[in-house]
Amino acid sequence: MKPLEWINGKLKFLDQTRLPLEEFFCETDDVLFVAKAIKRLAIRGAPLIGIAAAYGVALASLSLNHSMVKEARSYILSIIDILASTRPTAVNLFWALKRQRRVLDAWQTDSISDLQNNLLNEAKQIHQEDAEICERISSFGAELLSDDCSVLTHCNAGALATGGRGTAIGIISKAWELGKLKHVYIDETRPLLQGSRLTAWEIDRAKIPATLIVDSVAAVLLKQGKINAIIVGADRITMNGDVANKVGTYSLAVLAKHHGIPFYVAAPVSTIDAQMSTGKDIPIEERDAREVTELFGKRTAPEMVHVYSPAFDVTPNEFVTAIITDRGVHRPPFSDSLKRLSLRGELVG
Amino acid sequence: MKPLEWINGKLKFLDQTRLPLEEFFCETDDVLFVAKAIKRLAIRGAPLIGIAAAYGVALASLSLNHSMVKEARSYILSIIDILASTRPTAVNLFWALKRQRRVLDAWQTDSISDLQNNLLNEAKQIHQEDAEICERISSFGAELLSDDCSVLTHCNAGALATGGRGTAIGIISKAWELGKLKHVYIDETRPLLQGSRLTAWEIDRAKIPATLIVDSVAAVLLKQGKINAIIVGADRITMNGDVANKVGTYSLAVLAKHHGIPFYVAAPVSTIDAQMSTGKDIPIEERDAREVTELFGKRTAPEMVHVYSPAFDVTPNEFVTAIITDRGVHRPPFSDSLKRLSLRGELVG
Repeated sequence: MKPLEWINGKLKFLDQTRLPLEEFFCETDDVLFVAKAIKRLAIRGAPLIGIAAAYGVALASLSLNHSMVKEARSYILSIIDILASTRPTAVNLFWALKRQRRVLDAWQTDSISDLQNNLLNEAKQIHQEDAEICERISSFGAELLSDDCSVLTHCNAGALATGGRGTAIGIISKAWELGKLKHVYIDETRPLLQGSRLTAWEIDRAKIPATLIVDSVAAVLLKQGKINAIIVGADRITMNGDVANKVGTYSLAVLAKHHGIPFYVAAPVSTIDAQMSTGKDIPIEERDAREVTELFGKRTAPEMVHVYSPAFDVTPNEFVTAIITDRGVHRPPFSDSLKRLSLRGELVG
Repeated sequence: MKPLEWINGKLKFLDQTRLPLEEFFCETDDVLFVAKAIKRLAIRGAPLIGIAAAYGVALASLSLNHSMVKEARSYILSIIDILASTRPTAVNLFWALKRQRRVLDAWQTDSISDLQNNLLNEAKQIHQEDAEICERISSFGAELLSDDCSVLTHCNAGALATGGRGTAIGIISKAWELGKLKHVYIDETRPLLQGSRLTAWEIDRAKIPATLIVDSVAAVLLKQGKINAIIVGADRITMNGDVANKVGTYSLAVLAKHHGIPFYVAAPVSTIDAQMSTGKDIPIEERDAREVTELFGKRTAPEMVHVYSPAFDVTPNEFVTAIITDRGVHRPPFSDSLKRLSLRGELVG
């Protein structure tokens, strides 16, 4: 299942807002349509929005022709700005755009088609790399899990969120293939229900035994001893190991600690923000109140009610058992292990 | 606002499943319609279903006529059984039916109208008592709160759930009247959204400053220091102080403890089950999977997904700061303080 593909000069993507009711694909050559798709979560998941943004820059370059050599640079820069403004929290978006910015900066010829080729190749490279990254994360993670284990996951950090098999769900499906996994519990993940709409859909297709729960039932299962580990993805990880991820993650992390269950975060190193030392500085996107007060256009709360709806929360490093990246498994103190990654030049940013 | 009233030989009640979209009242003289209303949560909230069941028995007796003296007893007993089978967790239901059972047992004359009057009077008495109980709970609870405090509540333990101003929400509205309350945070309370549909509606009518959140945002607010106390209702309290309440309560209780915030449970003594020593024995109702997989009839999860949807969870006494009843505030060790209530003959059951 590919949530996003480059086909004949267009970007084809699954409109994830329509799942699980329909598998509806859009095809577009319009970068603004891609930006809007990221904004309205038709394309979502930290790694995938990075990939989509990179393709978006490539798409934009295709609208340039050979008489536009002079304007090309400022046009592409403005497109990068537009894409960067779609969502504030996931750092992969900025990382992917930075890679395209470097391609733009390295463009020295007067050939528009050189620029177009270079941007498209970089996007394809980011996409392909992400598939390999998912494989590595999945192998590292599956190794960590005990035999016959049951795992809880939150939101969707699967194939729908990445260029490959997923991060958290990649680990889960890998563990299933290795015969180590007994059961998956899926948080529905309010307000946008990425757990029931997306993760349950993916896990169902993979034929892994699973149970869907409302978010607050996680604590009940933890108390019953039914969960051996919690694995989530991440939208941004700071150099001290603090983790921004879908709202509800912090709650799970506290509950995991209280019940003595390991809490794993799975993400590519591109999710690590080398410029940010602690989670306190991560900008947290706030979502529209209607995502909480309406369901399918019908009101579920009084008209004037005030809503606080952060899309993400920050889990302090003390609650994180390990961060599983494509460059290996990192354990506390994260400031040491992530610094070593940085010193080895393995962090971009 | 009265969620339930006895008018001209009929029971009039607000269909709470239709809130906040419409304030739709049903009027019925059919006890089976009342039983169904309890089952489908048109009438809900532990104290209110006790009151409704008591009126239901009175309604049933009205269908008896003077030639039916012999069958009256077994008929009323069968109605009590039907009402008792509507929902398994809230003990107030069984407590109210036990009171009607005692009225039936005490009926010694051959007069059907005596029986009818006695059952109706008992129902009215239970209803009236509950209003007074709410007042006492609200006063005891408001006294506990610190000045200028912000409180989080879960589900709906308000006027809609009781015969009076509510238990948890009674305390909140009382504290507001006393000028002690700064803000209320309302958990939406998945899956049936009693927080957004019912509590937000009540709090809005009372003009108390409030913010609605999805359940998993509670942890975020606790971390931000925005919440000074959590107050919830209860469906059953065992003699050691374990508390069954709407699912999500246990999660909040663990989070409250972790963040050093008091966790209060507000309930009438009729919610205390004198026959049950620990929460392990409380039967927990499981709800239909469709409450999780569908919204307004539209699927939000794949067809075949397995769902675990307990309506309630049990919070062990170690997480409860105090139990606020109409007979005063009880603090740990609850087995001592609740036993004293029992020895004073203040527990029914």
